[in-house]
Amino acid sequence: MSGKLKMGMVGGGEGSFIGAVHRMAANLDGEIALVSGAFSSSAEKSKRSGEALYLEPSRIYGSYEEMIKTEKTLPEGERIDIVSIVTPNHMHYGPAKMALENGFHVICDKPVAFSLAEARELEELVKKTGLIFALTHNYTGYPMVKEAREMVKSGKLGKIRKVIAEYPQGWLSTKVEDSDHKQASWRTDPTRSGVSGCMGDIGSHAENLAEYITGLKMQEISADLSIMVDGRLLDDDGSVLVRFDNGAKGILFASQIAAGEENELKIRVYGEKGGLEWLQSDPNTLIVKWLDKPKEILRTGAGYTYFSEAAQKATRLPGGHPEGYLEAFANIYLNFAKAVRAHKNNQTIDPVDSDFPTIEDGVRGMMFIEAVVASSNENSKWLEFGGN
Amino acid sequence: MSGKLKMGMVGGGEGSFIGAVHRMAANLDGEIALVSGAFSSSAEKSKRSGEALYLEPSRIYGSYEEMIKTEKTLPEGERIDIVSIVTPNHMHYGPAKMALENGFHVICDKPVAFSLAEARELEELVKKTGLIFALTHNYTGYPMVKEAREMVKSGKLGKIRKVIAEYPQGWLSTKVEDSDHKQASWRTDPTRSGVSGCMGDIGSHAENLAEYITGLKMQEISADLSIMVDGRLLDDDGSVLVRFDNGAKGILFASQIAAGEENELKIRVYGEKGGLEWLQSDPNTLIVKWLDKPKEILRTGAGYTYFSEAAQKATRLPGGHPEGYLEAFANIYLNFAKAVRAHKNNQTIDPVDSDFPTIEDGVRGMMFIEAVVASSNENSKWLEFGGN
Amino acid sequence: MSGKLKMGMVGGGEGSFIGAVHRMAANLDGEIALVSGAFSSSAEKSKRSGEALYLEPSRIYGSYEEMIKTEKTLPEGERIDIVSIVTPNHMHYGPAKMALENGFHVICDKPVAFSLAEARELEELVKKTGLIFALTHNYTGYPMVKEAREMVKSGKLGKIRKVIAEYPQGWLSTKVEDSDHKQASWRTDPTRSGVSGCMGDIGSHAENLAEYITGLKMQEISADLSIMVDGRLLDDDGSVLVRFDNGAKGILFASQIAAGEENELKIRVYGEKGGLEWLQSDPNTLIVKWLDKPKEILRTGAGYTYFSEAAQKATRLPGGHPEGYLEAFANIYLNFAKAVRAHKNNQTIDPVDSDFPTIEDGVRGMMFIEAVVASSNENSKWLEFGGN
Amino acid sequence: MSGKLKMGMVGGGEGSFIGAVHRMAANLDGEIALVSGAFSSSAEKSKRSGEALYLEPSRIYGSYEEMIKTEKTLPEGERIDIVSIVTPNHMHYGPAKMALENGFHVICDKPVAFSLAEARELEELVKKTGLIFALTHNYTGYPMVKEAREMVKSGKLGKIRKVIAEYPQGWLSTKVEDSDHKQASWRTDPTRSGVSGCMGDIGSHAENLAEYITGLKMQEISADLSIMVDGRLLDDDGSVLVRFDNGAKGILFASQIAAGEENELKIRVYGEKGGLEWLQSDPNTLIVKWLDKPKEILRTGAGYTYFSEAAQKATRLPGGHPEGYLEAFANIYLNFAKAVRAHKNNQTIDPVDSDFPTIEDGVRGMMFIEAVVASSNENSKWLEFGGN
Repeated sequence: MSGKLKMGMVGGGEGSFIGAVHRMAANLDGEIALVSGAFSSSAEKSKRSGEALYLEPSRIYGSYEEMIKTEKTLPEGERIDIVSIVTPNHMHYGPAKMALENGFHVICDKPVAFSLAEARELEELVKKTGLIFALTHNYTGYPMVKEAREMVKSGKLGKIRKVIAEYPQGWLSTKVEDSDHKQASWRTDPTRSGVSGCMGDIGSHAENLAEYITGLKMQEISADLSIMVDGRLLDDDGSVLVRFDNGAKGILFASQIAAGEENELKIRVYGEKGGLEWLQSDPNTLIVKWLDKPKEILRTGAGYTYFSEAAQKATRLPGGHPEGYLEAFANIYLNFAKAVRAHKNNQTIDPVDSDFPTIEDGVRGMMFIEAVVASSNENSKWLEFGGN
Repeated sequence: MSGKLKMGMVGGGEGSFIGAVHRMAANLDGEIALVSGAFSSSAEKSKRSGEALYLEPSRIYGSYEEMIKTEKTLPEGERIDIVSIVTPNHMHYGPAKMALENGFHVICDKPVAFSLAEARELEELVKKTGLIFALTHNYTGYPMVKEAREMVKSGKLGKIRKVIAEYPQGWLSTKVEDSDHKQASWRTDPTRSGVSGCMGDIGSHAENLAEYITGLKMQEISADLSIMVDGRLLDDDGSVLVRFDNGAKGILFASQIAAGEENELKIRVYGEKGGLEWLQSDPNTLIVKWLDKPKEILRTGAGYTYFSEAAQKATRLPGGHPEGYLEAFANIYLNFAKAVRAHKNNQTIDPVDSDFPTIEDGVRGMMFIEAVVASSNENSKWLEFGGN
Repeated sequence: MSGKLKMGMVGGGEGSFIGAVHRMAANLDGEIALVSGAFSSSAEKSKRSGEALYLEPSRIYGSYEEMIKTEKTLPEGERIDIVSIVTPNHMHYGPAKMALENGFHVICDKPVAFSLAEARELEELVKKTGLIFALTHNYTGYPMVKEAREMVKSGKLGKIRKVIAEYPQGWLSTKVEDSDHKQASWRTDPTRSGVSGCMGDIGSHAENLAEYITGLKMQEISADLSIMVDGRLLDDDGSVLVRFDNGAKGILFASQIAAGEENELKIRVYGEKGGLEWLQSDPNTLIVKWLDKPKEILRTGAGYTYFSEAAQKATRLPGGHPEGYLEAFANIYLNFAKAVRAHKNNQTIDPVDSDFPTIEDGVRGMMFIEAVVASSNENSKWLEFGGN
Repeated sequence: MSGKLKMGMVGGGEGSFIGAVHRMAANLDGEIALVSGAFSSSAEKSKRSGEALYLEPSRIYGSYEEMIKTEKTLPEGERIDIVSIVTPNHMHYGPAKMALENGFHVICDKPVAFSLAEARELEELVKKTGLIFALTHNYTGYPMVKEAREMVKSGKLGKIRKVIAEYPQGWLSTKVEDSDHKQASWRTDPTRSGVSGCMGDIGSHAENLAEYITGLKMQEISADLSIMVDGRLLDDDGSVLVRFDNGAKGILFASQIAAGEENELKIRVYGEKGGLEWLQSDPNTLIVKWLDKPKEILRTGAGYTYFSEAAQKATRLPGGHPEGYLEAFANIYLNFAKAVRAHKNNQTIDPVDSDFPTIEDGVRGMMFIEAVVASSNENSKWLEFGGN
């Protein structure tokens, strides 16, 4: 095991959804070993969680502060290289800051922080320390998302004119946060989630995906957010008109009251010469559309000669072997691991190998969240993205 | 043939797309006989067009005025009952008005007129004459659209919260109106189309469909229209935020520069308890979504015991025999014919049998078109629907 | 109306499914006028049926013999040109024979006859009279089926190696013929259907489609037919292994007890260089598959420059306007009408315009039906197609 | 790590496809640690492969014999618990036998052996030793496959009547084995693959899946195998008619020359009351069909109250997070690990937790392979399954 990168996790104890996801993503490729953790603010629960993961008892901690402090004292080669942060939003900033300040690389769940101000502080710290910081906007880890990005970049679709990014879910159609539902509980709570519910949780994924694939930046937005379930405190639905920096127009919507929907994150991009479409629930398919010839169905892992290097490197299996959410998530971890290893070895790294969302994506995400809330509060006034 | 209703057509000569559609729709069920027409403003072209349709030369006219005047002099039972108007938008009002004033029932292509003012005049005239007026918002003729409407009406989905109606096309991605393209030519010409291009042509279909299925009325809209192709004079893309009269929120978008799309008119409706989805390119399928049980795939003509009467009456074939655009269009003609026959016989008619878009739909369509243009001109200001 | 071809119908009275289909198919394009009929063996029911269709009472007959005899005495230009036969299988031969012997062109539902022997007699008669005979294997009327055939013919897929044709339905999963179900009643009755139920009714469609698209002939078959519903007298399910005349292998299966299926007629063809797939319930899509590049989705009416003339001529609408079962059926009628008109005018006709299933297809269909029954009776022994 | 099960791998060195799959599947859930391996028959290549996997050099072996012999001498808690065999077919028997004889549990790629005789020997050995033996017919690891099996078992579909199992691939459409293609090379080589190519490699997956889901046993088969690519030595395509032990009929086909197909393993099962359909390339969807109500779309991880325990336990993520091939594969490893742990602790285990393909499945797979080859050699004679 000695060659593997060593990871400590903050959060993700018993009953956590996203903690287990991060662990499986880190496990998959055998590049990272989870050796340590502060899995819960309850020391006992942290211990129980860590033991169930076969960790050495001595490396299971009762708080992230303890973990970072103690691990720092361990000899190199034994101590952790990486801190993985999988807590609710309001608990990202603290461990991220402390990890960076103590020389650990960080991989953090999204959105990067509770507020834009926090995000900007972390951005400064990353710049200052030169450490690697990855943000798990995991959908950009899908091979066909990477292929889509490369296709736009290549110019094959011509100048982009219209982008439609959507993320409908239905799981908050009723007031499940009133029952014992851990996920719903913190995500609908402004003290843990931040100024936005739906837009912060999933709208920001759509925003990140749209900018990732198109290479464009959102310049102005006009938003109409809603609370559809009585008594809820944060938006559970929202629609956003977008103007991009190249003149393209966009629509972004996200909903958690789209009854009966799972995670139908979908993006459509139209350029002068063609369009493309990708849907997260059929993630191995990229539909490419043309003005005057048939639609093409591109598939992860297929043996087309012209697949981009980015898509190929993000693919583990030959065509026809569906890769899913965890594989895409693992691609973030894998490229993060490559970047960390390069950093350790003072090597430069091919950009394709270090393609993962960074602190800059995190800052843009927070700008998006705060801008859509502000616009909605002003009856959908057009606001400069990040300029509120 | 003597028992069939007799129809005269205005427009729809050689090279017309929609004229042929109306004729096939009228033919399909054998209830209507095309016996007369003023197919073109060129008398010669009208004659050639009518002869190719096996009409008696004496009933082929050089203008709609001549047709209406002459047909009126023929004995009942021989003269036409119906005028079908299939000209470009700016040529709807004239023949519609004259037909109504001379006692003929009218079926007219959409949008109903060149302006809201014209539409309101026609509305008055229809009320005054008591004649039957049908508008071919043909998509409401699909059986599964009718089923969707009945499902909402039944309350099975609960209160409606969110509606997404979209109509992407790609055929105007380049400036085809500069070549010899009859359809593109008038649709992009403000003197023939009206104040809007894309929104008038197809956005209004989406508007009509959304109100038809949900039974809700749009109350406020905020629009951002674009001209994406240089030198074009009317919008070829637009996005609209919508607030409905029950508090539901909506998104409506239409585009003619969505490169590679055909006619992907699609509607999604979400209520408190479930949702539904219908896509025009797969028109015999209605997807119904539930909070806590599997999605259901409803299919035209299937033998479920609980299909609505409205859907059943709009279906000609048992399940598995795809019905398409022309059958839906023919449903407008068929119900129109039933209403005309009931009018002739002074009979009342079951609402299911006279379910077709009327002049009121036409007026709302024009209100929509003028409102979205006005909102877009004011940087997406929220405007009351029809209140500008 | 005088220029339209005039048609008399045999069968298809009240309650008939396929009679209404033939009438709508004949109506759609305005080339044929139904002017006469012997709609039922009950004169009264025939009269009632004909009147509901707005026919002149004098041209509604109590039997096909009366219709053919009387119509023959009418002056040309008034009398019918065409006899359309829409009776159950055992009633095809009689009216077809008499119509041909009296100089009428015939369009007949499938399978062409009750037995191969009858089919061969009709074949002789068609040859002798030189009259036009069309068989409504309607699925070959779909534009994308024609495109598929042209694609194979062009050699783009290379030599064909494997063909899978299937037609699962579920409507006979229970013994509906015991209730008052007109369709089920005669189709499961050996005295009206012939030696096979499922294979005769829908297996023969799959057989026709496979030979139409591939241009290959089935050479040997090995079949395993079943009666899955207790007490039924004819096969309601069957599987057939096929060897084609070029060495390709095939599978053909049809079932009427595939619970929950509608009419999922589907064909897949694989050649050395690529494959294709077409499914009747999504009839406007043709999927083309390649060894080393993405699948292509071809769509009826799309503006690709290279669509075959055959597909284009079979298409009434631009892309995105779904054409369905009736339009495909109408394509058989339309091409039949063109051939009849050419015959009347002593003109030759472009093969694309007279592309419809003929008596030869009818004979092969009966050979198929009799061969699969014989093979199944011999425990799936390989038999030469038509050689039993 | 000390609590994890320890695994040694046979085969799967550099360039191996299935070795990497097994490793990722074993890694995913953090229950198994790869600590040892004999990755290649070349000691040097084995060493290089093991080092790239961060193994201790001392535990990388030059042959499986060496690995098993040496590991056996290590103290318990340090030595491996499990041998994973990922070599070509002809190399399964040797290491499996030796591992079992030396007290190691075995997980082996499919088909289980080179011949039925070998498989039966291994079956004996498993019985005798009482050790755990898992066979990676990985498709049965998908949650929706488990749900399908439970649905049949529950009787909701009624008595099963028809089963269609298919596995078309296109990757052997050309003679790729002549180039440097490791996978193609051994799979088309009778000395390494066994008596069958396509049927052994993927037909056996379809066979296993059909028996797994339906709970039925194939009783008689009639097969027609082909070599479509000139010069190939083993079948690359085959069609099989099947008679099941309850009277149901089936079709099974597999092809490696279905040009343009990836891994379209699909199964359809029809009972008296309903049917179901599952497709490997859309693995999180199970379509359930009913006689008189709409089709239902069941989705992995969805919150329906009535999902089977088997499906739920095989699911790692909430609905809408696609799980793929590796997750299904990992389910085999996970349940195998649970069974091994129970064995170590002398505990009994819930059948749901030890649901994985066993040596019995392996024997039936070999029976299938040998029977279809024999039937095909006798011109598709019906043969008793396993009785040749």
